[in-house]
Amino acid sequence: MRMYDIIMKKRNGGELSTEEINFFVDGYTKGVIPDYQASALMMAVYFQKMTERETLALTMAMAGSGDMLDLSEIQGTKVDKHSTGGVGDKTSLALAPMAAACGIPVAKMSGRGLGHTGGTIDKLESFPGFTTALTRGQFIENVNRIGIAIMGQTADLAPADKKLYALRDVTATVDNMSLIASSIMSKKLAAGADAIVLDVKTGSGAFMKEERDAKALAQEMVRIGKNAGRRTIAVISDMDQPLGYAVGNALEVKEAIETLQGRGPADFVELCLTLGSRMLLAGGKAETAQEAEEKLCKVIADGSALKKLAEFVEAQGGNGDAVYNTGLLPEAKIVCPIPAPVSGYINHIICDEVGICSLILGGGRETKENMIDLSVGLVLRKKVGDYVKAGEPLAMIHANDENKAEEAAKRYLKACSILDTPPVHTAFIKEIIT
Amino acid sequence: MRMYDIIMKKRNGGELSTEEINFFVDGYTKGVIPDYQASALMMAVYFQKMTERETLALTMAMAGSGDMLDLSEIQGTKVDKHSTGGVGDKTSLALAPMAAACGIPVAKMSGRGLGHTGGTIDKLESFPGFTTALTRGQFIENVNRIGIAIMGQTADLAPADKKLYALRDVTATVDNMSLIASSIMSKKLAAGADAIVLDVKTGSGAFMKEERDAKALAQEMVRIGKNAGRRTIAVISDMDQPLGYAVGNALEVKEAIETLQGRGPADFVELCLTLGSRMLLAGGKAETAQEAEEKLCKVIADGSALKKLAEFVEAQGGNGDAVYNTGLLPEAKIVCPIPAPVSGYINHIICDEVGICSLILGGGRETKENMIDLSVGLVLRKKVGDYVKAGEPLAMIHANDENKAEEAAKRYLKACSILDTPPVHTAFIKEIIT
Repeated sequence: MRMYDIIMKKRNGGELSTEEINFFVDGYTKGVIPDYQASALMMAVYFQKMTERETLALTMAMAGSGDMLDLSEIQGTKVDKHSTGGVGDKTSLALAPMAAACGIPVAKMSGRGLGHTGGTIDKLESFPGFTTALTRGQFIENVNRIGIAIMGQTADLAPADKKLYALRDVTATVDNMSLIASSIMSKKLAAGADAIVLDVKTGSGAFMKEERDAKALAQEMVRIGKNAGRRTIAVISDMDQPLGYAVGNALEVKEAIETLQGRGPADFVELCLTLGSRMLLAGGKAETAQEAEEKLCKVIADGSALKKLAEFVEAQGGNGDAVYNTGLLPEAKIVCPIPAPVSGYINHIICDEVGICSLILGGGRETKENMIDLSVGLVLRKKVGDYVKAGEPLAMIHANDENKAEEAAKRYLKACSILDTPPVHTAFIKEIIT
Repeated sequence: MRMYDIIMKKRNGGELSTEEINFFVDGYTKGVIPDYQASALMMAVYFQKMTERETLALTMAMAGSGDMLDLSEIQGTKVDKHSTGGVGDKTSLALAPMAAACGIPVAKMSGRGLGHTGGTIDKLESFPGFTTALTRGQFIENVNRIGIAIMGQTADLAPADKKLYALRDVTATVDNMSLIASSIMSKKLAAGADAIVLDVKTGSGAFMKEERDAKALAQEMVRIGKNAGRRTIAVISDMDQPLGYAVGNALEVKEAIETLQGRGPADFVELCLTLGSRMLLAGGKAETAQEAEEKLCKVIADGSALKKLAEFVEAQGGNGDAVYNTGLLPEAKIVCPIPAPVSGYINHIICDEVGICSLILGGGRETKENMIDLSVGLVLRKKVGDYVKAGEPLAMIHANDENKAEEAAKRYLKACSILDTPPVHTAFIKEIIT
């Protein structure tokens, strides 16, 4: 088998065999197939697409290119949740304790990643002392005892995907449904969950700006998951403005805690209930979506989800008291309003731009080496459709640097449009793909 | 400017600016832009094509990536001839003396290359003592004095093309008209001729198997040449069977000599007259094609073209007597017929396969290191349309090894189809593109 023939076949619109895909993934991972042939193939795939069978084969080959986690020592049906990412996305922080309190074991491997804010692990480090440096034994034991554990990504999960994604990132070959879907799903399959609930975002703050693209990606991922023998469900949700009100690491932790106290923002609560109910259904903890939502509401109402969060934080070395006393979380020195320049209805908030405000304040990292300031960020006061009077705060800036606060405020004002008439209401949950 | 944006622009169907193309060619030649980005761009070009302006910009950038030859010390209009290559293509051997005898200065830089037989230089080395190791001064002086000189490719001509072609060759991105045309034309433009006559082959022995592709390539090259300010003409000729009768280095030299003696094969003579007349027109040595052909016929009839060949060979250290006594050229030990298995009309000769017969006999090189046996090859006795009786020779094998002779003969028989009815006659010269 020759890589040249594989490129040529795909270039000419042919369907690659599983053997050909395995040959490519294996050779590329080992460095036998050079980057320049891999990038030519990726560009050919961009134009010629991949069939359902090819996409599955690519996903399985990448999933199998490194460690495949064995979670069989954990009791119960392991349900993994994955988000395609957005601004103010603190879903795991609230949803994991909710699901765990309902009896779904949450065994998560998380990365730090780059972005507007840190990843889930960065956010959790807002709890003083919190660590993800668990041994495999501790990890399994914690999940079985408490119901949740989160570990740093120590295992060599899907190295083929890692290498290929880095290449696609610099050769303009990211934007292809099969490639995006197989990249995400290869890691999920290697991570060993029995069922996967996908949170696919759409809008100005999402990777998929258009709803039809988000839907296509969701369908592709659900297909892959099912073909790989895992129960897979995707929820398409709005990311045309930030999720909830808080954007920033400790600020998002605080909002997640408030949500577990029954005081969460409407959109965020809706998302947690929708995703959570699908997790309960997939994990066999409810018969209907309604029953699942009722159970999730109950663990909020009776405080058991909040208690679960405290237990989890304590079990990983963090100060669980902060769950009940959020004053123990990192706090910024400067808190100042961004006043509305005119009165009117919030028409649109360019979501990506809000993320950049957080980045300017120091809340995210642009390169792996950047340090994150956990205390900074923004808390929105007005969201799309809200009426604001001139001079009223649109949002509060939390900063540790006057100049950065000013820069972020200016940028926020440009991102936020205010009109005389209210905007057309759009649904927050767009669709559920099963 | 970022290479990523250039790839993305082309991928999305945009037209690259001249600055962007220069940035790519310059950066790639210097090694600043990596192979994997170049191959991704080439694949994007394969799918999205290049406009006339982009193709010209790419050609000019590649032509300017190394030395640009200055032939101004040579008197008269320098007309370069280039063939896209085929089996039995000994055109330069006869045409160069013919053109020179008519007053067109022939200043050629030639490579050895890989293929079924050697390149022009290999073939010329059939003359004992012949060398292309000339200084620049000797080269210019020889052209001015005799009218012809051929030099090995010492200058660093279009290094960007060399590097890019090698990459395209292993990433399935060769087959694009703009890229093929710019690759050929960049070298021609760097080689400094005032006018360029292109011999574009089509058929089973050519790079362009289909006539419409050959025509598209010819048009593209003529456009580039004209846009670059060089008079450019392309002749599309048949390569569906070998050109003339001889395939093999010394055998082809012998056939070229016979042609200069007025005893050449019909197709080969037609090609030399067609290309030669365009060279004379481009060089201002004739007013009409008919006048040009008459001049070319005259230099054959009066022996001046043959004499020119002898002078040229002598001037480059070779034994010019071999021009008049071809027994001095290398001769194979074994000469044996390939008898026709049945009687009938030659319907088709798979041209590429005849090339492979020559390769099997040792007449070509597969890798740069291979030694060429100048004496071996095949001389066809019957061409397409000819009638053959069972047992009559289809061709004569010239070999130095019994086993190889047998293998080549078997292969030749498979390549040659004989039918009861004569095939439809097709024109040898398909079209002239100006």
